Amino acid sequence: MPRPGAPPALAAPEEDELYEFDYFYHEPGAVPGTLRIDADALPPTIVLIDYCETKASRSTIHEPEECIPYLDSASVSWVDVKGLGSEETLQRLGRVFSLHPLVLEDVVNVPQRPKVEEYQNQILLIARMVTLKPSGEGFCSEQVSLILGPHYLLTVQEEPEYDAFDPVRERIRTNKGTIRTHQVDYLAYALLDSIIDGFFPVLEVYGEQLEALEDEVVMNPSRKTLEKIYQMRRELLSLRRAIWPQRDAINSLIRDENPLISAEVRVYLRDCYDHAIQVLDMVETYRELASSLMDVYLSSVGNKMNEIMKLLTVISTIFIPLTFIAGVYGMNFNPDASPLNMPELNWYWGYPVCWTLMLTLASSLVGFFWRRGWFENFSASKND
Amino acid sequence: MPRPGAPPALAAPEEDELYEFDYFYHEPGAVPGTLRIDADALPPTIVLIDYCETKASRSTIHEPEECIPYLDSASVSWVDVKGLGSEETLQRLGRVFSLHPLVLEDVVNVPQRPKVEEYQNQILLIARMVTLKPSGEGFCSEQVSLILGPHYLLTVQEEPEYDAFDPVRERIRTNKGTIRTHQVDYLAYALLDSIIDGFFPVLEVYGEQLEALEDEVVMNPSRKTLEKIYQMRRELLSLRRAIWPQRDAINSLIRDENPLISAEVRVYLRDCYDHAIQVLDMVETYRELASSLMDVYLSSVGNKMNEIMKLLTVISTIFIPLTFIAGVYGMNFNPDASPLNMPELNWYWGYPVCWTLMLTLASSLVGFFWRRGWFENFSASKND
Amino acid sequence: MPRPGAPPALAAPEEDELYEFDYFYHEPGAVPGTLRIDADALPPTIVLIDYCETKASRSTIHEPEECIPYLDSASVSWVDVKGLGSEETLQRLGRVFSLHPLVLEDVVNVPQRPKVEEYQNQILLIARMVTLKPSGEGFCSEQVSLILGPHYLLTVQEEPEYDAFDPVRERIRTNKGTIRTHQVDYLAYALLDSIIDGFFPVLEVYGEQLEALEDEVVMNPSRKTLEKIYQMRRELLSLRRAIWPQRDAINSLIRDENPLISAEVRVYLRDCYDHAIQVLDMVETYRELASSLMDVYLSSVGNKMNEIMKLLTVISTIFIPLTFIAGVYGMNFNPDASPLNMPELNWYWGYPVCWTLMLTLASSLVGFFWRRGWFENFSASKND
Amino acid sequence: MPRPGAPPALAAPEEDELYEFDYFYHEPGAVPGTLRIDADALPPTIVLIDYCETKASRSTIHEPEECIPYLDSASVSWVDVKGLGSEETLQRLGRVFSLHPLVLEDVVNVPQRPKVEEYQNQILLIARMVTLKPSGEGFCSEQVSLILGPHYLLTVQEEPEYDAFDPVRERIRTNKGTIRTHQVDYLAYALLDSIIDGFFPVLEVYGEQLEALEDEVVMNPSRKTLEKIYQMRRELLSLRRAIWPQRDAINSLIRDENPLISAEVRVYLRDCYDHAIQVLDMVETYRELASSLMDVYLSSVGNKMNEIMKLLTVISTIFIPLTFIAGVYGMNFNPDASPLNMPELNWYWGYPVCWTLMLTLASSLVGFFWRRGWFENFSASKND
Amino acid sequence: MPRPGAPPALAAPEEDELYEFDYFYHEPGAVPGTLRIDADALPPTIVLIDYCETKASRSTIHEPEECIPYLDSASVSWVDVKGLGSEETLQRLGRVFSLHPLVLEDVVNVPQRPKVEEYQNQILLIARMVTLKPSGEGFCSEQVSLILGPHYLLTVQEEPEYDAFDPVRERIRTNKGTIRTHQVDYLAYALLDSIIDGFFPVLEVYGEQLEALEDEVVMNPSRKTLEKIYQMRRELLSLRRAIWPQRDAINSLIRDENPLISAEVRVYLRDCYDHAIQVLDMVETYRELASSLMDVYLSSVGNKMNEIMKLLTVISTIFIPLTFIAGVYGMNFNPDASPLNMPELNWYWGYPVCWTLMLTLASSLVGFFWRRGWFENFSASKND
Ligand SMILES: [Mg+2]
Ligand SMILES: [Mg+2]
Ligand SMILES: [Mg+2]
Ligand SMILES: [Mg+2]
Ligand SMILES: [Mg+2]
Ligand SMILES: [Mg+2]
Ligand SMILES: [Mg+2]
Ligand SMILES: [Mg+2]
Ligand SMILES: [Mg+2]
Ligand SMILES: [Mg+2]
Ligand SMILES: [Mg+2]
Ligand SMILES: [Mg+2]
Ligand SMILES: [Mg+2]
Ligand SMILES: [Mg+2]
Ligand SMILES: [Mg+2]
Ligand SMILES: [Mg+2]
Ligand SMILES: [Mg+2]
Ligand SMILES: [Mg+2]
Ligand SMILES: [Mg+2]
Ligand SMILES: [Mg+2]
Ligand SMILES: [Mg+2]
Ligand SMILES: [Mg+2]
Ligand SMILES: [Mg+2]
Ligand SMILES: [Mg+2]
Ligand SMILES: [Mg+2]
Ligand SMILES: [Mg+2]
Ligand SMILES: [Mg+2]
Ligand SMILES: [Mg+2]
Ligand SMILES: [Mg+2]
Ligand SMILES: [Mg+2]
Ligand SMILES: [Mg+2]
Repeated sequence: MPRPGAPPALAAPEEDELYEFDYFYHEPGAVPGTLRIDADALPPTIVLIDYCETKASRSTIHEPEECIPYLDSASVSWVDVKGLGSEETLQRLGRVFSLHPLVLEDVVNVPQRPKVEEYQNQILLIARMVTLKPSGEGFCSEQVSLILGPHYLLTVQEEPEYDAFDPVRERIRTNKGTIRTHQVDYLAYALLDSIIDGFFPVLEVYGEQLEALEDEVVMNPSRKTLEKIYQMRRELLSLRRAIWPQRDAINSLIRDENPLISAEVRVYLRDCYDHAIQVLDMVETYRELASSLMDVYLSSVGNKMNEIMKLLTVISTIFIPLTFIAGVYGMNFNPDASPLNMPELNWYWGYPVCWTLMLTLASSLVGFFWRRGWFENFSASKND
Repeated sequence: MPRPGAPPALAAPEEDELYEFDYFYHEPGAVPGTLRIDADALPPTIVLIDYCETKASRSTIHEPEECIPYLDSASVSWVDVKGLGSEETLQRLGRVFSLHPLVLEDVVNVPQRPKVEEYQNQILLIARMVTLKPSGEGFCSEQVSLILGPHYLLTVQEEPEYDAFDPVRERIRTNKGTIRTHQVDYLAYALLDSIIDGFFPVLEVYGEQLEALEDEVVMNPSRKTLEKIYQMRRELLSLRRAIWPQRDAINSLIRDENPLISAEVRVYLRDCYDHAIQVLDMVETYRELASSLMDVYLSSVGNKMNEIMKLLTVISTIFIPLTFIAGVYGMNFNPDASPLNMPELNWYWGYPVCWTLMLTLASSLVGFFWRRGWFENFSASKND
Repeated sequence: MPRPGAPPALAAPEEDELYEFDYFYHEPGAVPGTLRIDADALPPTIVLIDYCETKASRSTIHEPEECIPYLDSASVSWVDVKGLGSEETLQRLGRVFSLHPLVLEDVVNVPQRPKVEEYQNQILLIARMVTLKPSGEGFCSEQVSLILGPHYLLTVQEEPEYDAFDPVRERIRTNKGTIRTHQVDYLAYALLDSIIDGFFPVLEVYGEQLEALEDEVVMNPSRKTLEKIYQMRRELLSLRRAIWPQRDAINSLIRDENPLISAEVRVYLRDCYDHAIQVLDMVETYRELASSLMDVYLSSVGNKMNEIMKLLTVISTIFIPLTFIAGVYGMNFNPDASPLNMPELNWYWGYPVCWTLMLTLASSLVGFFWRRGWFENFSASKND
Repeated sequence: MPRPGAPPALAAPEEDELYEFDYFYHEPGAVPGTLRIDADALPPTIVLIDYCETKASRSTIHEPEECIPYLDSASVSWVDVKGLGSEETLQRLGRVFSLHPLVLEDVVNVPQRPKVEEYQNQILLIARMVTLKPSGEGFCSEQVSLILGPHYLLTVQEEPEYDAFDPVRERIRTNKGTIRTHQVDYLAYALLDSIIDGFFPVLEVYGEQLEALEDEVVMNPSRKTLEKIYQMRRELLSLRRAIWPQRDAINSLIRDENPLISAEVRVYLRDCYDHAIQVLDMVETYRELASSLMDVYLSSVGNKMNEIMKLLTVISTIFIPLTFIAGVYGMNFNPDASPLNMPELNWYWGYPVCWTLMLTLASSLVGFFWRRGWFENFSASKND
Repeated sequence: MPRPGAPPALAAPEEDELYEFDYFYHEPGAVPGTLRIDADALPPTIVLIDYCETKASRSTIHEPEECIPYLDSASVSWVDVKGLGSEETLQRLGRVFSLHPLVLEDVVNVPQRPKVEEYQNQILLIARMVTLKPSGEGFCSEQVSLILGPHYLLTVQEEPEYDAFDPVRERIRTNKGTIRTHQVDYLAYALLDSIIDGFFPVLEVYGEQLEALEDEVVMNPSRKTLEKIYQMRRELLSLRRAIWPQRDAINSLIRDENPLISAEVRVYLRDCYDHAIQVLDMVETYRELASSLMDVYLSSVGNKMNEIMKLLTVISTIFIPLTFIAGVYGMNFNPDASPLNMPELNWYWGYPVCWTLMLTLASSLVGFFWRRGWFENFSASKND
């Protein structure tokens, strides 16, 4: 179920295959708060959505300082930053929102491990948003950082092209559901919920791949199958690393009695936590099945070898004795030198008797193998 | 021990084999509380059972609002909804019972992970009810949601055809046992107890299958055996995913001092918890045995290959040297050209000596293999 | 170390091999407290042992109600019920001892998982007592339920023929040790201690079997060995399921400050807990060794195949080229048609040179294999 | 990414390969606080860096007692000791800093397990600093001990040639960042941060090696590959042993409310803890992948054997019957003795018919194998 | 590093190999406190060491009652009992020290699991002391029980010949270190420290054996190697069973605020705890490496089989077609009967062409295998 319209940038080249297993790090000993801007990163675009129960507006911001008037206003102000391409803009954003240097570092120097951290009057939530690759094979992911303040929510996304938040924007714009009657903590929940729910379509694809692999592995285990199982284990491991800390982060949001999150929203977060557990449960289940498949693969390879060996053994066991008999009567002992020297060669029924002997021997052996079921097994593997 | 009269709908087609490993999810970003009605789902039927110590009545409800008078009455009112086929009815039910939108979502959008959640004046319990497939192979399951209020219990079942509650209905109707002397919390316990006890017949079948597999795997490991072991591991994993969270849910019902559940019923829930632990214990035991069987399978395949190779080696080792000898005396060196050229061919005893040599060699080799026990092993596998 | 005089009933038939992995369950939805009497079960016999520091008496009870006068007397009254064959007697016992219906159910509907449960003025302890089978292969087990009240102890045993309590009865009768100076909680400890100590002789047998298997698995891995390892893993798993919850139960007896158990007896229970840990530690150790043995088995099978293949390869590699040479000089190119056509056949030294060639080739190959040590390995496996 | 200028001492000889898995121990029964000086160890050099917001100085210390005036001064005093080669100097250092004998023992008798211990007015932190070997294969590590007092920090390094602290020294000297505005607890954080961040470049190399191994293991599994996988598992295990206790140590620094560490620095330590978790997460991920690769390796070896066996079986199955036919017509039954004796030999079309028979048989077998895909698999492994 | 002078009794015979996996148990139902004296056990010798800061004395005790005057004196009194050979002496010791019957049982009925138990005014510590076997292969162990009272320490050793306490005795006699300035709790620490440090030399030997096995397992996996790996896993498991509970015991000594242990000694015990963790860490690391080696072994066996099969396949593939050709020209079709019957036999260049054909075929096949690298692999295994 690949989502249409996914950005071409997602079709990442093969060479950074292990990317998902890395974290960002800077030069050991660097000043905390040092930002590293990727040369390829696009400059950030900033969109402000401001709403209350009665109205909602959306504007593009060019200077971070334009946000300042909104921060303390009673309306809900969502500042959405997409792209990490300008250190100056990001530093100014940090000053506008009074971000701790370590917060800014985590937001900019991606990837970080998902987590929740409480600061003076703010909550930092690092999340990981996954989406299927347009090719339908594997998934890609990006970091979304949420900084929740008393009346504002700052979100910073790694990749500008795509996010999972359009339905939420639509609900705000059209006043669908109850989102406009809630405060900013509900908005943070709504975005987090979109992120967590985005894991399900990815997992569904893996479930289908697992089912396809199950047949392949028993019926016709090949080198390709092995690569696929390994690749699946690798990607499921990567998914697990994305969802596991996210689940813990949501749980600590629910448990820690931070005044920035109301009791009512905590009920909604509980639902989100529930979904995170479901995702993790599916990931672990698929991992276990993939690991079992590896065991099955190994056994299947052994089974296949048994069938190859049976063929060789059947052929050899039938023909080697026959060839020996033919060899015997190909010997050149001189019948003329002695009546004991291969008198069979001169018998009237010599040749037919020889063939009878050979055919009898061969059919006994065939019968022997038949009764032991070797031919059944052999024909059973025709689809191989 | 397949239950008679199970609905034909249970014989689910092969294509959704991995169904048990999925959870429901809706479009990321959807409004919380959005219901998704499956096109195939039958419209819900609602049955109200109302009882107190002295009398019990049963009626079919057509409009959800008919339940309202019963909700605050002192009698125990059990509203049983079967089938999830009408969004309108379910929304009206939600309003009648003042369900939180997230509760209604969990009830309708199946499957959800089993859990307990406390709400204002209500407890939501999501349970999973399992039953053997009529074919006797594998099991099927459905979600049952219980919403416990002060004087009422609302149960919502995914599949209308079947449930495990008939004995409880009978106990209410005939005033068997003490159920009519208890409050609604006891009714919730009684239903939960039926659900948990329903796992035992399923597990019993797996126990029998395991025993059958044990012989097969050592004596005659085939491709079919391998598939069966994998399938068993897969289904036991699925069972574990059903019972594990259910056990935790019951435990939190016992521990959390919710006033909707009396101390007396907590003692009964403790028994139910005990059974859930027993189920989980059996599942884990069977899983461990199935995993051991996979190891045994792999070794058995190796053993079988050894026997195949031994046959080939015995035949080859006996006949290859004989064939060589026959080949030697099939050479055409000209005896006339030199007295050294194959004088054996003209000896009086040439041919018999040659046979003697060959038979001696063959019987030495047979004796060699005999003493090493290769023939024993070989005949030991006759049942193979 | 099979106990002499064990009942013939222990030699259970093969068909219920997986019995140890089942729990009792009744029809889902049955009234809690429903008892199921096994048709084969013998009717219960009831023995009352009543003692204080100065005297001790033992009497057989025919009607459960005869126990009533003893229950509140200051003396220690031990009512020992053996056999679960009469629902009426058991129901009357339940009334005499004011048992909760769920307690009676757990006592009668065996097997249950070992556990401790506190009730109003009573403690229920479900224990599992193991004993070696008379055949010395495997063990059997039965449930013993202990209900500890203020001045009485009710024990109910599944199987009437055997229990491990005779030494305790003897200590009471002969006033050996300090048992008669203690209260009823000490009696419960003494019985529990006998049950736990009964695991050690069983484990000792498994230790010896493991040692025997260790040699077999490296030297001569056969199908039989594989079955034995699997069987041992299965039985150790069963033992673990018996001792694990028992350990937890004893621990909760020590920790929960129930007034029915004095501080002094808690010290004795700590010793009993210590032994339960030792049993579990041995079980886990043996399980780990048995699992390692499975790995060793698999490698040994591969080693054995290497040796078979080496034999085949040595024979084939030596004789196939020789047979080719013999084949060459068996060709019928006509020497008369051309001086180039097999002139060797007419050489004076043709045949001896041919043999020399063949023997040289064969001995080079033998030397090649010899230097690579293939013959060593081969002769090393003579004990095979 | 090998660091340039790493000391030659790092290229440790092969013989102490398992060194990373040892801890220091002294003769059982020795007096606690006994120091053991390695004969090869260089004498310690001591550098004092003393700074406050307005100025910073750096001086080399020759007598440990020179540190005394700095210890209670308000400025931050960092005493950095490199090399463990003189018991006398180290004992004097211990007296100057009032070190507990057990602290001095842990500092000098390397390697110790990373840990944090609180003493009267001091915190001891044992850390392990890793760095890539100049060869780019594997890493080496050394112990750094930090003793944090009210106004001083004593660091003791095992190896004098290298440390990761130069960027911190530079930040102090040039007043870069905010380090000079903080107290000594921030300095301890900054050094610890450098140590933790030093794990990332090492892990990056293992990530690249894993990717290289992944192809090798499926395509062309050799004995060399096996050694590499094992070696990687071994080194990752060693890394895990370095980072795991370090993570716990940092966590206890954050949690335990020691007055030597301010609330502000605790926020920075939280970031450091976060990085330690990231390191551990990567190590565990790589370990899991390496373990999966071992499974893949084993299966690949089996696959390769199947291909070898297929080649042998194809050749044998095709030629063995043909050779038999040739053998039959090489028999010497005398056609003159009977019209039944091999009349084919005298047929006009005898020889061509024989060839036709043989070619037909051969091509049927080739077709048989072709249809079963044996040649595909075979050609697919050309890169092998 | 085998300790010189170890007693010959340590060279235990092979038959009790699994001894390390047993615990002592007595007849189920025996009176608690029953002692079992091993018939071989030597009678106990009792040595009293009594010291304070100013003086120290050592005397051999013949009657346990001689200890009584020392027990309440302010000096530190260490009563060291070696050997468990006399029930009467041990019972009298129990009365002199007011030991609980369960304490005496644990002290005498060895082996017990290491543990700490607090009694009225006493602490019981069961420890396990390990030492290398004189042969340098494997280790042996004995139980040391420490009973710590207010001014005395009673130690009971299983084996009289050896203990690790001589350095401590020497420190007391020569007043080395600070031991004579401390109370009896420090003495208990000093002995425990000697016991824990005694694990390190044992582990060092296993580290060296692991390194030796690593090469063997990849280069030349034999049946012997397999046995060694299994034996190592077995012994490391035994070591783990000794150190694991000891670590927990020391931890509970530190945590439980028993007045018999001063705060100052708790700091020393923390060091001892640290060493116990280090020992456990090494044991777990070696166990993991040994388990990896088993995986490597299995793969190596497969590799070796591939090489054997390659040799067979190369030889067969080259010579089987050649033999077929030779067989063809050994056929006896009569050239006189038809010009189509084997005219090659009469060609002038028949025989040379035949050889050319055969040599071309053989060299193509050799080239084919050469290009696929089969000969490389083959020669690479020369050291095999
Ligand atoms: Mg990826
Ligand atoms: Mg950070
Ligand atoms: Mg799916
Ligand atoms: Mg599947
Ligand atoms: Mg599976
Ligand atoms: Mg596995
Ligand atoms: Mg299913
Ligand atoms: Mg939900
Ligand atoms: Mg069963
Ligand atoms: Mg079984
Ligand atoms: Mg397995
Ligand atoms: Mg396994
Ligand atoms: Mg059994
Ligand atoms: Mg029960
Ligand atoms: Mg034993
Ligand atoms: Mg063993
Ligand atoms: Mg295993
Ligand atoms: Mg293992
Ligand atoms: Mg290393
Ligand atoms: Mg230390
Ligand atoms: Mg990387
Ligand atoms: Mg990888
Ligand atoms: Mg593995
Ligand atoms: Mg794996
Ligand atoms: Mg595995
Ligand atoms: Mg041992
Ligand atoms: Mg004891
Ligand atoms: Mg070592
Ligand atoms: Mg190693
Ligand atoms: Mg393993
Ligand atoms: Mg492993």
